[in-house]
Amino acid sequence: MTADVADVRQYFINLQDTICTRLEAFEPTARFSREDIATPGGGLSRPRVIAKGEVIEKAAVQFTHSIGPTLPPAATERNPHLAGRPFQAVAISMIVHPQNPYVPTTHMNLRYFVVDGADDTWYFGGGFDLTPYYLFEEDCVHWHQVAANAAGTHYDAMKAACDAYFFIPHRDEPRGIGGLFFDDWTQGGSDSSFNLVQRIGNALLPAYIPIVERRTTTPFGQRERDWQLYRRGRYAEFNLAIDRGTKYGLQSGRRVESVLASLPPLVAWEYQRPIEPDSPEAALLELIKPRNWLAST
Amino acid sequence: MTADVADVRQYFINLQDTICTRLEAFEPTARFSREDIATPGGGLSRPRVIAKGEVIEKAAVQFTHSIGPTLPPAATERNPHLAGRPFQAVAISMIVHPQNPYVPTTHMNLRYFVVDGADDTWYFGGGFDLTPYYLFEEDCVHWHQVAANAAGTHYDAMKAACDAYFFIPHRDEPRGIGGLFFDDWTQGGSDSSFNLVQRIGNALLPAYIPIVERRTTTPFGQRERDWQLYRRGRYAEFNLAIDRGTKYGLQSGRRVESVLASLPPLVAWEYQRPIEPDSPEAALLELIKPRNWLAST
Repeated sequence: MTADVADVRQYFINLQDTICTRLEAFEPTARFSREDIATPGGGLSRPRVIAKGEVIEKAAVQFTHSIGPTLPPAATERNPHLAGRPFQAVAISMIVHPQNPYVPTTHMNLRYFVVDGADDTWYFGGGFDLTPYYLFEEDCVHWHQVAANAAGTHYDAMKAACDAYFFIPHRDEPRGIGGLFFDDWTQGGSDSSFNLVQRIGNALLPAYIPIVERRTTTPFGQRERDWQLYRRGRYAEFNLAIDRGTKYGLQSGRRVESVLASLPPLVAWEYQRPIEPDSPEAALLELIKPRNWLAST
Repeated sequence: MTADVADVRQYFINLQDTICTRLEAFEPTARFSREDIATPGGGLSRPRVIAKGEVIEKAAVQFTHSIGPTLPPAATERNPHLAGRPFQAVAISMIVHPQNPYVPTTHMNLRYFVVDGADDTWYFGGGFDLTPYYLFEEDCVHWHQVAANAAGTHYDAMKAACDAYFFIPHRDEPRGIGGLFFDDWTQGGSDSSFNLVQRIGNALLPAYIPIVERRTTTPFGQRERDWQLYRRGRYAEFNLAIDRGTKYGLQSGRRVESVLASLPPLVAWEYQRPIEPDSPEAALLELIKPRNWLAST
């Protein structure tokens, strides 16, 4: 028994609308673009992008329903026996690049694959993670506490998988403080998996919004802005050079503007950028190393 | 008979010095950083980077001599029988990101591989290419004329290889107007190949500098700056997601600051950026499509 694609699709579309409405509440004038684009074979691409807001410099919240004749290689690295089969996928992805460097960037992705074939293969995947430019321990604890409540007994494994996935080998740095990550997920069967995915999807706003509210009025200057633009370079490096989702998107010929909507609005690369010792910038690099954020709770 | 690594090394180091001196001549105060870094096994990394100049926003001119026990996979995609062998490589790479959007970005790379082993395997590779933000046909013709003079009878093949290599599949766009590209080059033997490489290396400044001189005083405003930052996004996408040289550099554990020194100093990504019809920006996208720039000469 597999979860009905239509049910998952409806949940993702509702979640997309909820997230967009909540993010727009921060903005006096900027609004998400709205498009519904039919894709080959009866699929749907529903990108929502907001840019140049007062609080949100750029955010992309996207729903896609893909109906494809052949799974591309990047989607089957862990499941080579599925290569070449027809598939359906529904997915929601979200990225928020705030204006204020004290507000972290966040990313969420939830997806459901159904591979047509004799053995009725399906799986869920996704998660969410947080990328601060300046680190406030109380924000990290809150983020991971909400994640832990959503993931329940799976938190430890999903947290470890997130730390492992969002790692930039060539920098020897984590992308951020992690969160939850799961892939090829079928544990407990279809109903239980879909329930878990809904708990995680529903946790994103309670995890992120209190941090936005707490930090978005903190004054900042050119120093903090420069650091934010520089650190966004790591984000672009991860998404373009490492991320399996982006590779899949580009290989599968998905709409490139949607696949790359996650890229930051403005990024600076600087050769051998000096980091002042004992500064808040140096502290970030020290403190984002993977650890148990809930150890003392 | 293979070209002596020491001879190629000396030519590349001299060329690096010549290029840095010529580029610094544009700058009243900004100067190239100078470091000589010993690398494992007796190699040398000699990065030279200049930033925040009045004419040159960022340029990296780098020499490396790598001595390695095992060729990494990205270096042997076209020569799988060489995988795993010890090697020496000397290389010069150069990238210039000018301040003025009317001055194109340029890139050059020249390299010499010697693979230790029974059959004394060696090859040269490299080339140079030009990426304009606004297109002036006379500049393109000049660029390709100098390239053609340097490459001689190999121009047509090297030009076609350059167009094929510097292509961004997910955008269905060329990175720029091309130039010369060659790889696994042994044609005519070692002396002849090294002579060709020197002709190409010596042609870079005569190809590029007249274009810089012609365009760097052209007044520009926010519109042209925004377009430059946006188009630099394509450059970052190519280097991080597609370029074989960058993949090789990151896989082989080369100094990451050197490998990624080619990334633009400031980049903007914008979702579905509108392009005004019949504008100079629209003209660029039309005119950079591969063509024979020397057809009428």
